[in-house]
Amino acid sequence: MFDLRHQEMKANLSQLGLRQKSSDITRLMALAFQRPDILSLAAGFTDSESLPVEDVREIVQEISCLETEAKASLQYGPNIGRDALRSHLTSRIANCDLDSEAELQPDRLFITNGSQQALYLAVQTLCDAGDCILVEQPTYFVFLEILQGLGVEPIPMPMDDRGDVDLDVLRTVFEKAALDGSIEKIKAVYLVSYFANPSGHSISEEVKQALGELLTEFNSSIALLEDAAYRELYYEEAHPAKSALSIDSCCDLPVLYTSTLTKPYASGLKVGYVYCNSDEWRDAMLAVKGQQDFGTSHFTQAILERALLSGRFDRHLSELRGIYNRKMQALHRCLARSLLDLGWSWAIPEGGLYLWLRSPNGLPTGSESEFHKACLDSGVFYVPGDLCFVNNAQIDYIRASFGVLSENQLEEAAERFNRAAASVDRAIAN
Amino acid sequence: MFDLRHQEMKANLSQLGLRQKSSDITRLMALAFQRPDILSLAAGFTDSESLPVEDVREIVQEISCLETEAKASLQYGPNIGRDALRSHLTSRIANCDLDSEAELQPDRLFITNGSQQALYLAVQTLCDAGDCILVEQPTYFVFLEILQGLGVEPIPMPMDDRGDVDLDVLRTVFEKAALDGSIEKIKAVYLVSYFANPSGHSISEEVKQALGELLTEFNSSIALLEDAAYRELYYEEAHPAKSALSIDSCCDLPVLYTSTLTKPYASGLKVGYVYCNSDEWRDAMLAVKGQQDFGTSHFTQAILERALLSGRFDRHLSELRGIYNRKMQALHRCLARSLLDLGWSWAIPEGGLYLWLRSPNGLPTGSESEFHKACLDSGVFYVPGDLCFVNNAQIDYIRASFGVLSENQLEEAAERFNRAAASVDRAIAN
Repeated sequence: MFDLRHQEMKANLSQLGLRQKSSDITRLMALAFQRPDILSLAAGFTDSESLPVEDVREIVQEISCLETEAKASLQYGPNIGRDALRSHLTSRIANCDLDSEAELQPDRLFITNGSQQALYLAVQTLCDAGDCILVEQPTYFVFLEILQGLGVEPIPMPMDDRGDVDLDVLRTVFEKAALDGSIEKIKAVYLVSYFANPSGHSISEEVKQALGELLTEFNSSIALLEDAAYRELYYEEAHPAKSALSIDSCCDLPVLYTSTLTKPYASGLKVGYVYCNSDEWRDAMLAVKGQQDFGTSHFTQAILERALLSGRFDRHLSELRGIYNRKMQALHRCLARSLLDLGWSWAIPEGGLYLWLRSPNGLPTGSESEFHKACLDSGVFYVPGDLCFVNNAQIDYIRASFGVLSENQLEEAAERFNRAAASVDRAIAN
Repeated sequence: MFDLRHQEMKANLSQLGLRQKSSDITRLMALAFQRPDILSLAAGFTDSESLPVEDVREIVQEISCLETEAKASLQYGPNIGRDALRSHLTSRIANCDLDSEAELQPDRLFITNGSQQALYLAVQTLCDAGDCILVEQPTYFVFLEILQGLGVEPIPMPMDDRGDVDLDVLRTVFEKAALDGSIEKIKAVYLVSYFANPSGHSISEEVKQALGELLTEFNSSIALLEDAAYRELYYEEAHPAKSALSIDSCCDLPVLYTSTLTKPYASGLKVGYVYCNSDEWRDAMLAVKGQQDFGTSHFTQAILERALLSGRFDRHLSELRGIYNRKMQALHRCLARSLLDLGWSWAIPEGGLYLWLRSPNGLPTGSESEFHKACLDSGVFYVPGDLCFVNNAQIDYIRASFGVLSENQLEEAAERFNRAAASVDRAIAN
């Protein structure tokens, strides 16, 4: 009998196909799935204990009793997303910005498969291979993977000591690019603006305003991509900065604002949203979305719409803020016990899912480093910070996620981490 | 107060962005949503009455009682998809092919956002702009939109009177392409192989075998994309042809087999799957999927996995086969009353959701035609067949879907259609 198992056919891949390499995060996640003995501070999973199992059961039960809605939710929906959900989310952005709702229009908002798809559609419709996007340093490392996959070059923005874009230095970058013509290749600036992945940093309104002015001065067709995935995951208070959608200088630019219902509620539902102030650009993204999937799952949209409109979403989110605050504190406290004396440093975040640790004396933390091996040996795992820098330029950071582990597990993970740090410190001293 | 409403920002779109035009199907669907007075034979929606509302409610209830699974289903899952679901679907393809399960490997199967995403990933990873894909005539018109969006040229294959690819003529096409070197641009052949959208036609094993031989002879790196979305939606008996995955001559080519759990169960859940016999190609597609969405909704995958493993999926599908058979018969019977005398013709399908009607004497049916206007006037709507041909080359077909309307509505729609046909016939006679 003819056997297919050992056949490996060679397809003739496209440029895009040939550019793909196995994703760092996919590899990390696969490792995390495979080694249950390891406590993972790596993957950005969300808190499992608090996942809204009962909410979702109730919502599905309620929907199943509404004849029209029950069937509609299991039928195809429009490519752009459910109307009521889009209206609610438009108001939600406006409320976060403390602006009147009338200024944002629901037909400029559409639903995506998590905010990840929104970022992908944005880059596809803005950039040809060889074009450039300016990114903060550090930045969301899966965004760098999107750029790599699409052949787009990330350009690191100069950063100041507070973790903000250094606008004076950026001006000189633009001046140079305007002179040599390379400014034409710059299609967008990507900002992770609230409790950023990985740094926890938020961008002030002043910086956004000044950045908008700078961009407008040099080339007002450069788009501003604002990734607000963690905006609502603050611990005690929302960050006061308005989004670029409501900041004067930015409104002279094409602005795309992305966020998600996934991290603040249930990551298994995978629903994100995007607001775009350029109709032509939005239409192009929607056309591509139509080709990619024809609309996000109508059923998960219906669940989230009901979670939002019934108040369950915000009740859950409010609980989650406390949970992540406690988890962050637990990890911070246990790491601080040993690491501060060893010369490690980090800021205490006010939202998000990550501690962004800097090792002492430039100690390398990459996946091939002694420190990384020491951590695996001691049974703990993290995202090497170099993945978050263009060309892995900075090698002495670590992203430690406290999203999925319990407080007890976080304490144990921190102890293992501390042991690894101490052993590497001793090895260096000897 | 500064007002955003009237601002329309111009983004500087990429080549891909500039190629996008509003999708024909999106426009048709929007029209169908907006005019409830019109009975739509256009959109490929699924039967609403039979949607498995109670199944899904029960499944979610059951999942919510399983502590680990309840939480896992609301958490992120692996990019490739759920293991048990992938194993089941691998066996399912093998069973459809009446082959032993051992020959297909679950790690070559991954889960997508409907089979639409699988087709998009396949074209992205195979074709650069300017490359070509061979398509049947007619073909799935959203596939043509994918190609248009990615700048890939569809090449119509010569077809014989039975609706099969004419392999003798195709050989001369390849001979010519081999001579002038253009064969290098041909990256794939796209087949809708079971109860096709729009024609209802299925491809015999003999034709697949001969096509595989022809491709292998000319260029064995040309990929075979087999779209089996309607394979399980037969009315009485499965079509006997094995898939390309199990046909000897095709196994010397890179083969991608796509199908979906959406149409045979609940389109709102949007879960498809793809099997690829080329590991390198699969890895490239998975890397792009990771960038696009990081994995399909884990929750909808969990629902479908349970529907499949509990037997609910197959019970529902079995019911659905009878429903679509009755609906097809109802539409066919009512249309036949008037249209046959007026010179219209069509084949009676043995599966799928569509009648593929040919108008008499080349009467144009396109969206700007008199006939289309007459149908809208009489309150019925269809997909103009020219959308299913490369360059709209054939203008006298109509795709009439009986998926979503009830039998009574189908009878009314057919009467309206018959009235429009009769009025246009009279107008021509005068």
